[in-house]
Amino acid sequence: MSNTDEQKRLRVVIVGAGFGGLTAAQTLSNKALAKSSFDVTLIDRHNYHLFQPLLYQVATAALSPADIAAPVRGILGRQPNITVMLGSVSGVDTAHREVIVDGRRIGYDRLILATGAQHAYFGHDDWEPFAPGLKTIDDATALRARILLAFERAEMEPDPAKRQALLNFVIVGGGPTGVEMAGAIAELAKRALAWDFKTIDPRAARIILLEAGPRLLTPFDPSLSEKALRALQKLGVEVRLGATVTDCNAKGVAIGSGFIETHTVIWAAGVGASPAGRWLDAPVDRAGRVLVEPDLSVPGHPDIFVLGDTASLAGDNGKPLPGVAPVAKQQGAYVARLLIARAGGKSGIGPFHYRDFGSLATIGRKLAIIERGRFRMSGFFAWLLWCVAHIYFLIGFRNRLVVALTWLWSYITYQRGTRLITGEAGRSDMTSNDRAAGS
Amino acid sequence: MSNTDEQKRLRVVIVGAGFGGLTAAQTLSNKALAKSSFDVTLIDRHNYHLFQPLLYQVATAALSPADIAAPVRGILGRQPNITVMLGSVSGVDTAHREVIVDGRRIGYDRLILATGAQHAYFGHDDWEPFAPGLKTIDDATALRARILLAFERAEMEPDPAKRQALLNFVIVGGGPTGVEMAGAIAELAKRALAWDFKTIDPRAARIILLEAGPRLLTPFDPSLSEKALRALQKLGVEVRLGATVTDCNAKGVAIGSGFIETHTVIWAAGVGASPAGRWLDAPVDRAGRVLVEPDLSVPGHPDIFVLGDTASLAGDNGKPLPGVAPVAKQQGAYVARLLIARAGGKSGIGPFHYRDFGSLATIGRKLAIIERGRFRMSGFFAWLLWCVAHIYFLIGFRNRLVVALTWLWSYITYQRGTRLITGEAGRSDMTSNDRAAGS
Repeated sequence: MSNTDEQKRLRVVIVGAGFGGLTAAQTLSNKALAKSSFDVTLIDRHNYHLFQPLLYQVATAALSPADIAAPVRGILGRQPNITVMLGSVSGVDTAHREVIVDGRRIGYDRLILATGAQHAYFGHDDWEPFAPGLKTIDDATALRARILLAFERAEMEPDPAKRQALLNFVIVGGGPTGVEMAGAIAELAKRALAWDFKTIDPRAARIILLEAGPRLLTPFDPSLSEKALRALQKLGVEVRLGATVTDCNAKGVAIGSGFIETHTVIWAAGVGASPAGRWLDAPVDRAGRVLVEPDLSVPGHPDIFVLGDTASLAGDNGKPLPGVAPVAKQQGAYVARLLIARAGGKSGIGPFHYRDFGSLATIGRKLAIIERGRFRMSGFFAWLLWCVAHIYFLIGFRNRLVVALTWLWSYITYQRGTRLITGEAGRSDMTSNDRAAGS
Repeated sequence: MSNTDEQKRLRVVIVGAGFGGLTAAQTLSNKALAKSSFDVTLIDRHNYHLFQPLLYQVATAALSPADIAAPVRGILGRQPNITVMLGSVSGVDTAHREVIVDGRRIGYDRLILATGAQHAYFGHDDWEPFAPGLKTIDDATALRARILLAFERAEMEPDPAKRQALLNFVIVGGGPTGVEMAGAIAELAKRALAWDFKTIDPRAARIILLEAGPRLLTPFDPSLSEKALRALQKLGVEVRLGATVTDCNAKGVAIGSGFIETHTVIWAAGVGASPAGRWLDAPVDRAGRVLVEPDLSVPGHPDIFVLGDTASLAGDNGKPLPGVAPVAKQQGAYVARLLIARAGGKSGIGPFHYRDFGSLATIGRKLAIIERGRFRMSGFFAWLLWCVAHIYFLIGFRNRLVVALTWLWSYITYQRGTRLITGEAGRSDMTSNDRAAGS
């Protein structure tokens, strides 16, 4: 490649405005770095970037959707070299170097696929309606409606067995999402809702966390898993280790020969990659993640890069990199720098290395666990650090301020500010007759 | 009625947790007033009380739903004599004194119907899908998605005529809702979105406000209507007076022989009462509102009261009372005091009198108009008063704080914080392929 000012502007198409895709776009529009010119098109099927680590707080009525989402155009739209496009990608034509978006074809010179992950039910996709997962804002508001409706229906249910089934909440999967979800539902039932009903006592709700493995939060040190377990138990969560779900249906969850009657199951167990591997016909791992080269390119396609939850790459310790925001962000920045270096005539910048700044998880409003290499920390001060870190990484001054104030208010009052039953879930069941009773 | 402590507790059923129903319930649980005992059941089909006067700000991406809605249980659930019930009322059995809620029957001694209003299309219900109105949170988030999607689709539309049709926004009805909506969309297009697109210039959006009558805001003095008109025109809104809509369809809006091509029509013209009149087989006015007695009871049913937007009653000037929050609140408090007085053995407290504290309407971020009797005010200071009044009447400390801070932030930055396309609308059209591209 030539290093002259007359060189052709490279068309870079990025699919996905999550942590990876957004960071790649931001780096490619950084004037100090990107002296060579790129025309970047960022495509996402939503008009917002979502801060997924706090999505469970929307599902449990602590935050509003807009608090953890920022419009992509608001973040990037004013960069002159970036075009933001709302649309669904259905495939890639590698022969003609085109991405297919809602039937249209968008040409590219370099392609970055950062399409994230989706729920995986390990061959039991029929469980999905009974055990929804948590990946999008619509997932979160639907789950919020489902949880709040369970209490409302229990309040009106005369049969004690059916009432208790409505008050059973089962979370499948003891990773960070499952642990955070279980703690948040326990606090919702035992604190925020405790005095708001007449027939039922929301504190009688059972929150059951099922984990197939021998301990919670496997990526962490066993001592921290133990701390998380005890903190959850103190919040009243029943944790069942070594519990493999064998069926989910309208009545509840089967674990081998046991059965828990419930109307609310939350799937936090399996994550599979988005279909990017199929689009490219590329080699994938068992979860569908593309097995990328050390520079995150796709074998046989040096101009196509896959990153974040969509990619499978071993870290320095030989184990696959985890599906967390810092990996996606570092990979997004890496690919952008690689493209800049190559466009500047340099041969490359070496393989991708993940710099691990540590892992965090939180259990309720008093405890978090932090691990960084051999450094471990837990308790209230770790929880404060967790709060600060999450506010720091939120995009937008308004969102930071609102989330900080909301958390402070919730901490003092034990209340939840967004207890709304909206959308389809709110219109079904008990509230089916349209235009019947007002407000 | 006896005035002894042994008297039977009266079962009061209130349908609707809007301004009227909520105020009635609060007054009946006020210990200082309600020495006689009432068992109150408050039924609503939503689990929240909605501050409808700010709903247009949710529809135009300025506020989050939870900022203007408060869970009814959170407001009232801890009052020992109040039962909150989520459900849809489908009828009243006056012979057996029962309300029918989702097939169940709830007995009452006194019944208060405060079921609000709904959109009315003057015999053209087929217009509704093309010209949705704004009464619920789901209406507001659907409208927000529709408005934001129109800009996204325009950005991708190669045909200039079709592009302009997507950028045409028509508001039908020049009352307070229509005027506030038109001003808010104009500011969204010309300020918040102005620099966020590459192909289109959002400032080329046409915002057209249609009013069938000879002036805007007819309840106000003509001098204030004129000020509102000029303020809207300054914001770039095209106001067409004497414009009667003769058709709404997928292509746009017909006004006699004229036709405006558009994909976004907002219905702020007609409001009809909820079906309470039908439930009771009571005399109603042309809009379906129950013609109530001076004490708000239903003719022939002295123990059934209808109030707020569901009732039709002349004010002291002989004109029907307007469908605004203060009327509903004062009527809710009046009926509760009437029940308390009667239960205390007093004969009554005289007929209902509306105390008019004035009317407000706002146009954009700089001007409001206020009228109270012969006192009139407009301009920036009126706008500040409008802000303070609306924050004051919001329920809940958290909501007041968040709304105040959000307005301050928007005022300084011109930004909108809740530009999210969510729900069904966000899944249709351009974003139809599920699980195609990530985030």
